[in-house]
Amino acid sequence: MREDIPGRANVADTPELAAYYEELAAREMGALWTVANDIEPWFPKPKSVPVIWRWQDVRPFVDRAPGLVRPEDAGRRVVMLVNPGRRDISAAVGLLYTGVQVMDPGECASAHRHMASALRFIMEGSGAYTIVEGERMTLGARDFVLTPNGTWHEHGVAEGGTRSIWQDGLDIPLMNALDANFYAVHPDLHQGETKPVDSSATLWSGGIIQPTELRKNWQKPWSPVLKYAFEPAFEALTRAAKVHEGSPFDGVIMEYVNPLTGGPVMPTIGSSLQLLRPGQHSRAHRHTGSIVYQVARGSGFSIIDGKRYDWSEKDIFVVPSWSLHEHANASESEDACLFSFNDLPVMRALGIYHEEAYTGTPDGRQAIIAG
Amino acid sequence: MREDIPGRANVADTPELAAYYEELAAREMGALWTVANDIEPWFPKPKSVPVIWRWQDVRPFVDRAPGLVRPEDAGRRVVMLVNPGRRDISAAVGLLYTGVQVMDPGECASAHRHMASALRFIMEGSGAYTIVEGERMTLGARDFVLTPNGTWHEHGVAEGGTRSIWQDGLDIPLMNALDANFYAVHPDLHQGETKPVDSSATLWSGGIIQPTELRKNWQKPWSPVLKYAFEPAFEALTRAAKVHEGSPFDGVIMEYVNPLTGGPVMPTIGSSLQLLRPGQHSRAHRHTGSIVYQVARGSGFSIIDGKRYDWSEKDIFVVPSWSLHEHANASESEDACLFSFNDLPVMRALGIYHEEAYTGTPDGRQAIIAG
Amino acid sequence: MREDIPGRANVADTPELAAYYEELAAREMGALWTVANDIEPWFPKPKSVPVIWRWQDVRPFVDRAPGLVRPEDAGRRVVMLVNPGRRDISAAVGLLYTGVQVMDPGECASAHRHMASALRFIMEGSGAYTIVEGERMTLGARDFVLTPNGTWHEHGVAEGGTRSIWQDGLDIPLMNALDANFYAVHPDLHQGETKPVDSSATLWSGGIIQPTELRKNWQKPWSPVLKYAFEPAFEALTRAAKVHEGSPFDGVIMEYVNPLTGGPVMPTIGSSLQLLRPGQHSRAHRHTGSIVYQVARGSGFSIIDGKRYDWSEKDIFVVPSWSLHEHANASESEDACLFSFNDLPVMRALGIYHEEAYTGTPDGRQAIIAG
Amino acid sequence: MREDIPGRANVADTPELAAYYEELAAREMGALWTVANDIEPWFPKPKSVPVIWRWQDVRPFVDRAPGLVRPEDAGRRVVMLVNPGRRDISAAVGLLYTGVQVMDPGECASAHRHMASALRFIMEGSGAYTIVEGERMTLGARDFVLTPNGTWHEHGVAEGGTRSIWQDGLDIPLMNALDANFYAVHPDLHQGETKPVDSSATLWSGGIIQPTELRKNWQKPWSPVLKYAFEPAFEALTRAAKVHEGSPFDGVIMEYVNPLTGGPVMPTIGSSLQLLRPGQHSRAHRHTGSIVYQVARGSGFSIIDGKRYDWSEKDIFVVPSWSLHEHANASESEDACLFSFNDLPVMRALGIYHEEAYTGTPDGRQAIIAG
Ligand SMILES: [Fe+2]
Ligand SMILES: [Fe+2]
Ligand SMILES: [Fe+2]
Ligand SMILES: [Fe+2]
Ligand SMILES: [Fe+2]
Ligand SMILES: [Fe+2]
Ligand SMILES: [Fe+2]
Ligand SMILES: [Fe+2]
Repeated sequence: MREDIPGRANVADTPELAAYYEELAAREMGALWTVANDIEPWFPKPKSVPVIWRWQDVRPFVDRAPGLVRPEDAGRRVVMLVNPGRRDISAAVGLLYTGVQVMDPGECASAHRHMASALRFIMEGSGAYTIVEGERMTLGARDFVLTPNGTWHEHGVAEGGTRSIWQDGLDIPLMNALDANFYAVHPDLHQGETKPVDSSATLWSGGIIQPTELRKNWQKPWSPVLKYAFEPAFEALTRAAKVHEGSPFDGVIMEYVNPLTGGPVMPTIGSSLQLLRPGQHSRAHRHTGSIVYQVARGSGFSIIDGKRYDWSEKDIFVVPSWSLHEHANASESEDACLFSFNDLPVMRALGIYHEEAYTGTPDGRQAIIAG
Repeated sequence: MREDIPGRANVADTPELAAYYEELAAREMGALWTVANDIEPWFPKPKSVPVIWRWQDVRPFVDRAPGLVRPEDAGRRVVMLVNPGRRDISAAVGLLYTGVQVMDPGECASAHRHMASALRFIMEGSGAYTIVEGERMTLGARDFVLTPNGTWHEHGVAEGGTRSIWQDGLDIPLMNALDANFYAVHPDLHQGETKPVDSSATLWSGGIIQPTELRKNWQKPWSPVLKYAFEPAFEALTRAAKVHEGSPFDGVIMEYVNPLTGGPVMPTIGSSLQLLRPGQHSRAHRHTGSIVYQVARGSGFSIIDGKRYDWSEKDIFVVPSWSLHEHANASESEDACLFSFNDLPVMRALGIYHEEAYTGTPDGRQAIIAG
Repeated sequence: MREDIPGRANVADTPELAAYYEELAAREMGALWTVANDIEPWFPKPKSVPVIWRWQDVRPFVDRAPGLVRPEDAGRRVVMLVNPGRRDISAAVGLLYTGVQVMDPGECASAHRHMASALRFIMEGSGAYTIVEGERMTLGARDFVLTPNGTWHEHGVAEGGTRSIWQDGLDIPLMNALDANFYAVHPDLHQGETKPVDSSATLWSGGIIQPTELRKNWQKPWSPVLKYAFEPAFEALTRAAKVHEGSPFDGVIMEYVNPLTGGPVMPTIGSSLQLLRPGQHSRAHRHTGSIVYQVARGSGFSIIDGKRYDWSEKDIFVVPSWSLHEHANASESEDACLFSFNDLPVMRALGIYHEEAYTGTPDGRQAIIAG
Repeated sequence: MREDIPGRANVADTPELAAYYEELAAREMGALWTVANDIEPWFPKPKSVPVIWRWQDVRPFVDRAPGLVRPEDAGRRVVMLVNPGRRDISAAVGLLYTGVQVMDPGECASAHRHMASALRFIMEGSGAYTIVEGERMTLGARDFVLTPNGTWHEHGVAEGGTRSIWQDGLDIPLMNALDANFYAVHPDLHQGETKPVDSSATLWSGGIIQPTELRKNWQKPWSPVLKYAFEPAFEALTRAAKVHEGSPFDGVIMEYVNPLTGGPVMPTIGSSLQLLRPGQHSRAHRHTGSIVYQVARGSGFSIIDGKRYDWSEKDIFVVPSWSLHEHANASESEDACLFSFNDLPVMRALGIYHEEAYTGTPDGRQAIIAG
């Protein structure tokens, strides 16, 4: 791709050059100027595109899965959500993976661990649990639970529960891109329980008052809180909304944090909960970093790179890096609430977070250019 | 002080040396060996001693103060608690100051700021408030509020309230020892209110979920939470006690933190809330750093350097640096709860925190050697 | 890829499943178990392979380039070194790019900046210079210079110099993988010089004694030292070798650092210089992170995943993530010295650095299994 | 001390109050308003005053000491420099101690350690050495050596050397003020040598290139470099002066750092070397923190709080916290060079560093108001 701009590659093909290129290619070499404009774009050119997976479309496939495969064969019985631009790496957006997992009462997966960081956001059912490093966590709708990189973990649904469905989020594609993925199955297939049920959530629930003894010994790069229950988080969000204007781009947005450091819940994945007030329609912005949203409450729409995506509860949608995006609550009476996870901690850790408000219109909202 | 130990100063007086010392003293000099053993003790030798100020003894003086001075003359109407070893610097223990302030309905103090870091722990009354940097905080019993170094702040009691009493804690002696104290009176004597009432406590109450917009702009070395209400803190402590053994030296102890960093609430002062279970009697330890306790709930005793100090609600007592100390709940049925503040953040910031369990007895408790 | 191991995906194809997969694929979905074993490998499976580019092979192509393209058309006249497993992203190994650039006296490139972090290691010639953020740096053989992410920079060779050749190293593939690459051409095509020549290297050369004024104002995530001259670095390495055993895996290895933080020179790229004593043959290890080596002095060989790669001065070779590697100096009388750059800061910032000594043989060296 | 200013204490004595104060004093209490204006000054009011100890005055006392006491009796044979305002704590300024130690060939002190951080700046003699944690360091004139808090250390002069004199600097008064001092004599009175002579200075001398293996294992809060030789430091300073304007208040000033972190050499003590160009006379400023200077080269004067202090080589002088100060080189042809150490790391760690340029005159220099 030639560009007729000073400082960019603009070399015409000649027979001599063609021969040169061929010789180079035969020796694990190449001429930079043949690819420079492609590999050094003016701004990020994600392969990912915006996508919305509506729950009404996804759910039938999730419900069919238990009839098709046993968990002991599937490993995990998950319908992956795959970005059309990232099929080669099974990513939903950027280098983030997401999928919807289903388990029936009495089913459980064997314990394992991986370098990928993982989280679950519960969608439906009762009796689901996760065990991480010896701590069993009971999970209800919209609870958010971590299975950080390197921790032994396993999932299941109690005998007395109901079919349980949750969204998994992982950075598997990131770990693979960085050639740093590891996986291990627990030698006993299941781990013992060594801690009281839900103990980390209980111990750290105050957030601003923390157990002194546990503060002393924590050396891990991830949050000591493993389960972030929805209700107290949503209440905190609602309280905040009473005294806080919020962000022009995101409404009232709060971030789940590692209370020991104030940093993200895991080194590579951050997560937020945001509230759009009745009728609120945010301004647009764009930034590096990819985001996966699930609608936790209400209905509305987001405009991503000029195209409108309508959403309602349990719909999942993605915003690629550097895509312009804005969010709107379609209801004039009810709050809307979005759960999301992202790779912003990677952007920040590497010094490459970059953000820009949209200034193309006076109200900061995009014109709909596609539909 | 001579010591007959290799490596310590052990110089006999002679006429020649006496003359030498005299000449040195006349020239702003001295011989190190005349003071070395004193200024380089084998272990910390605080001038502070353990003291308990029982509420029944302090309260009459507090109640007399409003009849004796007006707040506009006194600046702040406070009965200081002064360690007998630290009268020269008005410290309660180490380089920490504490006192008990009293205000009647309709009274208020003018706005000011200082390099000293300050906190209040409310003891009695209704209608008390503090305004810090434009945020009014309403204060109830046992609420804990910060007025960090450099912030404009003012206190008062609303017209419709009742006589209000609280404990002040500051590091005034530390700032003076470090030659770093500053003080200023607000040019308008009172500041305006620019934020919703109790907004920081509201916004950050979740602790593990935090307002994203406010996270971006906070550059201060102290906590964005200014008020730590007692009830949610005590509830968190109680919840923690159900799943957590706690510390052998302190029972179930939790630290108030700056949620943005997980660090102490202010750079020089830390604060904790601890619960002693019915009948619990902790083991003894000692460490660098000074602590001021107020009994928030229940009754019991502490043994400090072999002497027993019985305490009940609102009593205030201090543990000097490197003093052996252990705590006991005297009730077999009720929890006891201690609020405390300390200079441990100074110890940690300077790399001089040092801690040692008492091993003199099998159960780790001191024999009472004084009374 | 099915694996008959508990906890791994092991699902047989059936007509029902085939239909299910097809329906999913039509809706931007998929079944995790069809790819799980591939995307969650037991350990890193880089697409990159070990490669050596010998200078005798590369140099003729470099020397032909000036006759084939003008720098104003090429942008930069660079022979890229391309890993056969990473041709799609023009990477030399992992997500690191490298190439060899050539400029003749009087030539210069226009000023630009990019989110990719970059470095140069000078190979030949005199009169080469780089200007970064207004500071001109004069470059001699084996000098190492940074053009950090976001800095305006431009390169050239003075009229009185000689043909100059250097190795470029960048994290372009990383920035693209993270959808975070930006590029801009300087509005004036060239920047002015606002600082004394070589001033950063001069000011910070002491390393352990640093200019106080400049320490106050530096907010950048990269090193204030932009040029690391070879001679003083090599002297420091030689001095260290007299009192320091070094690493069993790397000989005496030293890391170029940001003196303000002790961290890596740039947030995403680290760089080292290492000395193998005469006859030294290191033990093997493997770790996450990719490394690009250039032989700065001497000759020897490295064994990478069981295959021997002989090298001598100016040869460039790469070690992919998690590949077993060991280095040997083939001379019994002369030191060998390797310059290298790597993505280890990314591994560390994201908490995914993982290292393992090779224990397959008593001496920790690999058997040669390929050749 | 009453002050007739709103917000300050201004309470007239009355018989009732006198009785109240007496009763309080009998019960370890007091009325804050009787001391508030004293303990909360408008700005720092150090007890320390500026002092200069001229070498011609100090030296005779130093030279007499070996005839008066044996090192085995004195512990350390040191003439302390004592601020007239801080005789009670043997401080030279603020909470810093300094003294001049003398040892004859063949003498040595026994090994010990303390919580106080210490440094030495060599003034005269040959053959002096210090051993810190098993590393012997050879010391020449103006070399600067650390004996950090908690390290085993011992000093001596080799048999073949000459009478050696050096300045000691410690934070003994700070450790005592914080009730955190500890002292121990080495069980064997002397420690073994486990590392090559001068190895830390050798290994870290590059500063901007650092030994990778040693970077991995360092957990200490102080610098791994124990000796900072004068010549390379002064050369770095001289090089910097060629490309760097320096500070308006300090000339070209450089700070000795911990190369692993870029922070101060020890957690509580910083140290600098500064160059005043021929004829240079700096502007005045003031800041929190105390400084002890020794003249390393040349002659000149400093103006401290309006009084001029002339100095030449080996003179030692102090600037108390918040005192206005400026420095001048009296020579029109030679550089002047000041070595100094300070407690600025304490100010910074506790968030209480505060600095202010003097703006009372157009040229920023003080009028001489005392003499
Ligand atoms: Fe997993
Ligand atoms: Fe956004
Ligand atoms: Fe105050
Ligand atoms: Fe304690
Ligand atoms: Fe570039
Ligand atoms: Fe390696
Ligand atoms: Fe010592
Ligand atoms: Fe100064």
